[in-house]
Amino acid sequence: MRVLEAKRDGLELDPADLRAFLLGYLEGTVEEPQVSAFLMAVYYRGMTPAELGALVEVMLHSGSVLALDHLPAARIDKHSTGGVGDKVSLPLAPLVAEAGLYVPMMSGRGLGHTGGTLDKLEAIPGFRTDLSLSRFLEVLEAERTAMIGQTAEIAPLDRRLYALRSVTGTVPSIPLIAASIMSKKLAEGLTGLVLDVKTGSGAFLTDMEASRELARTMVALGEDRGVTVVARLTAMDRPLGRSVGNALEVAEAVACLRGEGPDDLRQVVLALAGEMLVLGGRASDPEKGRAAAEALLDSGRPLDRFRRMIDRQGGDPRVVDAPERLPRAPVMIPFKASRSGQVVAVRPRPIGMGVVEMGGGRVRLSDTVDPAVGLDALVTPGTWVQAGDVLARVHARSQGDAERMLAVLRDAVVVSQAGSGAAGAKMEEPDLLPLLGERIGAGSQVSERPQVRAG
Amino acid sequence: MRVLEAKRDGLELDPADLRAFLLGYLEGTVEEPQVSAFLMAVYYRGMTPAELGALVEVMLHSGSVLALDHLPAARIDKHSTGGVGDKVSLPLAPLVAEAGLYVPMMSGRGLGHTGGTLDKLEAIPGFRTDLSLSRFLEVLEAERTAMIGQTAEIAPLDRRLYALRSVTGTVPSIPLIAASIMSKKLAEGLTGLVLDVKTGSGAFLTDMEASRELARTMVALGEDRGVTVVARLTAMDRPLGRSVGNALEVAEAVACLRGEGPDDLRQVVLALAGEMLVLGGRASDPEKGRAAAEALLDSGRPLDRFRRMIDRQGGDPRVVDAPERLPRAPVMIPFKASRSGQVVAVRPRPIGMGVVEMGGGRVRLSDTVDPAVGLDALVTPGTWVQAGDVLARVHARSQGDAERMLAVLRDAVVVSQAGSGAAGAKMEEPDLLPLLGERIGAGSQVSERPQVRAG
Repeated sequence: MRVLEAKRDGLELDPADLRAFLLGYLEGTVEEPQVSAFLMAVYYRGMTPAELGALVEVMLHSGSVLALDHLPAARIDKHSTGGVGDKVSLPLAPLVAEAGLYVPMMSGRGLGHTGGTLDKLEAIPGFRTDLSLSRFLEVLEAERTAMIGQTAEIAPLDRRLYALRSVTGTVPSIPLIAASIMSKKLAEGLTGLVLDVKTGSGAFLTDMEASRELARTMVALGEDRGVTVVARLTAMDRPLGRSVGNALEVAEAVACLRGEGPDDLRQVVLALAGEMLVLGGRASDPEKGRAAAEALLDSGRPLDRFRRMIDRQGGDPRVVDAPERLPRAPVMIPFKASRSGQVVAVRPRPIGMGVVEMGGGRVRLSDTVDPAVGLDALVTPGTWVQAGDVLARVHARSQGDAERMLAVLRDAVVVSQAGSGAAGAKMEEPDLLPLLGERIGAGSQVSERPQVRAG
Repeated sequence: MRVLEAKRDGLELDPADLRAFLLGYLEGTVEEPQVSAFLMAVYYRGMTPAELGALVEVMLHSGSVLALDHLPAARIDKHSTGGVGDKVSLPLAPLVAEAGLYVPMMSGRGLGHTGGTLDKLEAIPGFRTDLSLSRFLEVLEAERTAMIGQTAEIAPLDRRLYALRSVTGTVPSIPLIAASIMSKKLAEGLTGLVLDVKTGSGAFLTDMEASRELARTMVALGEDRGVTVVARLTAMDRPLGRSVGNALEVAEAVACLRGEGPDDLRQVVLALAGEMLVLGGRASDPEKGRAAAEALLDSGRPLDRFRRMIDRQGGDPRVVDAPERLPRAPVMIPFKASRSGQVVAVRPRPIGMGVVEMGGGRVRLSDTVDPAVGLDALVTPGTWVQAGDVLARVHARSQGDAERMLAVLRDAVVVSQAGSGAAGAKMEEPDLLPLLGERIGAGSQVSERPQVRAG
């Protein structure tokens, strides 16, 4: 009660008091109403680094922490704050594992307009994301990567707090987001972590300064616990890649591992791989790491590793060579340009929600997901199109679903009036965020200016 | 969920949405964590008059509302925000009833350093404060006043919200305090209400501006619902009267009804009675009302009415004429001045808590109360004393309890150094709040400057 009132009034909590409050919640002496009000007070008041550290420690040690010190190389993971079409983990994990590092990846499910890695993996027939921790370790030791969901043993306090946050309007709190992510990642027994902080209208945090603050908060939390964390801001003002929907994204991820597929996906995968190689001691700087990753990707070996990992996790590895073995939706309708001009915006949030409404995602965590539905061949902003060009293909369970998705796309894909404005206007690029934005690392808070623009 | 997030973000709620949220809580579709977080958001964001109106309406109609229109005179009640030594209701109710008005009084219990009218009444052997609503009406019709606790039928939503507030650190929220008080009082079927808003260090709200805001909020809430509300700020920077503790305060209340007892208690009773007579149409202004009340008090008839009310509520009416029939503590020790000088402060909060620690009050609502313990003959600030003078008498269950209370009193009763400062310093009065402070009424927000100073 003292903790709650002190936080309410904006006083700094003694970390020992906060710890006792949280342990009281785990033990049942502090009740849900108190914790709910505390979360709302944190929403308004924030948390000091010492408070946040205490919160993360209690969350982390509320469950099992993987002991991976016996592994002969660094353990490096990547976490994304979530976006539309974000299938980066699928090619990235086998790529970095191929480079000799361990990638013990515990991922989440899609919720709202953003997809989740677990749902994508489960689009592969037979693939199990609910491995026991011991089986997870077996796959990890064999392939240097394994991909599962957060098990009940990992950070149970995080699960309880997240459930409260989701009903109390306190999800969008930077310290609470940072603590939730970091408690789970620290439980993976990592030596380093790369954060992919999505920015723009399709990101969870649409405000750029909030994204930076989240990145800085997580970097600091990691540093204090001996885990080097580097955050990279990446664009989510348009979908990543050209596919949205679970099976369709698996196919695109496989294409990336073949050296094919869309360039924006490849660039994000390589940039994050480069950061991971630096954290794991396999490259001296991110650019060299990126180059090493690119060479590896083009060798085809990461694809073989992905195939083996699928096999070890119960999935059908033949989907890698025959994507038609992935679930396919019965209805496919092209979305065509109604006029000629430049595509100036492809809005990720309505597109993500449209796919959810087709059954491809979740509004509630208990919803089941249709792996087959979604979009592919989605146009990218900046493209010049003629009336009648196909701007996307809608894969749906029914004609009605497909037509609703077409209506969403008519709003979400914006084509400029051809010939409007001066002739020189043709040279203008749409106003997009840099695909690879600032880099936020430890101490110096290194910030690189954007290098690559999509479109 | 929309309601919670809108309040969190400081947006004005549609009263219909707030109503649906609160009804959802009553029906079980909105859960305690959501309401807890909502209360904390209200703590930070406040409520608009329309929101507050919706809250009060749902609270009021969550239970029974007394229908008293058949009574042949106005129904006027008084509510105090609570203080130390505040036994005003006991003489006030029979006094105003004697003047021809109905006083249907539902009171509360003591909690923390402040006492409660129910606990005081229950110090009278046999007195029942848990009458059924029908028995309450019988006593009210016979004596024009009856005094009970809030029954389960009255504003059950208030009880549930109060229980949540008490564990979520959201008790000290002006709109929530105002809604809690007004929902209960409106359920009494009143035509007018006088609020005694205590101010100073022993009040629930120690900040003067907060006290004013609470008064204005309640006045507005009443006006909007056809109940005229007048608030009077009264001093709680020292205890009211010279007794603290349930049986001892009953004795002091009886003395007041006899025209005896301390002047500060008498002045507050008469001022509030004057306001009630105006609200009930029995006086044209508060000063005339006060004069009429004074004449009535001195007639002795209100004491007779109090005796009859005690009898009808199961109590032993002989305590009125023989206060020694009230419960008496086995240990009585005088608290004596350790030096000569002027009493410059008698701090109500530690004194109230000291009585609680002797068993005379509650820390939790479930605590039982010892009616006999407390203090009487408590000195008032401004008094000049000699070393060895009795400044209070401690009534305790044990020698140890009494000694702990003496230690409290040594801190709480401050005697200036005699002869310190210039000779002229003797003329200085201690810095006290006016006993009867501002008056806050409808519309014009009439404010009278202080007239009476205690001490």
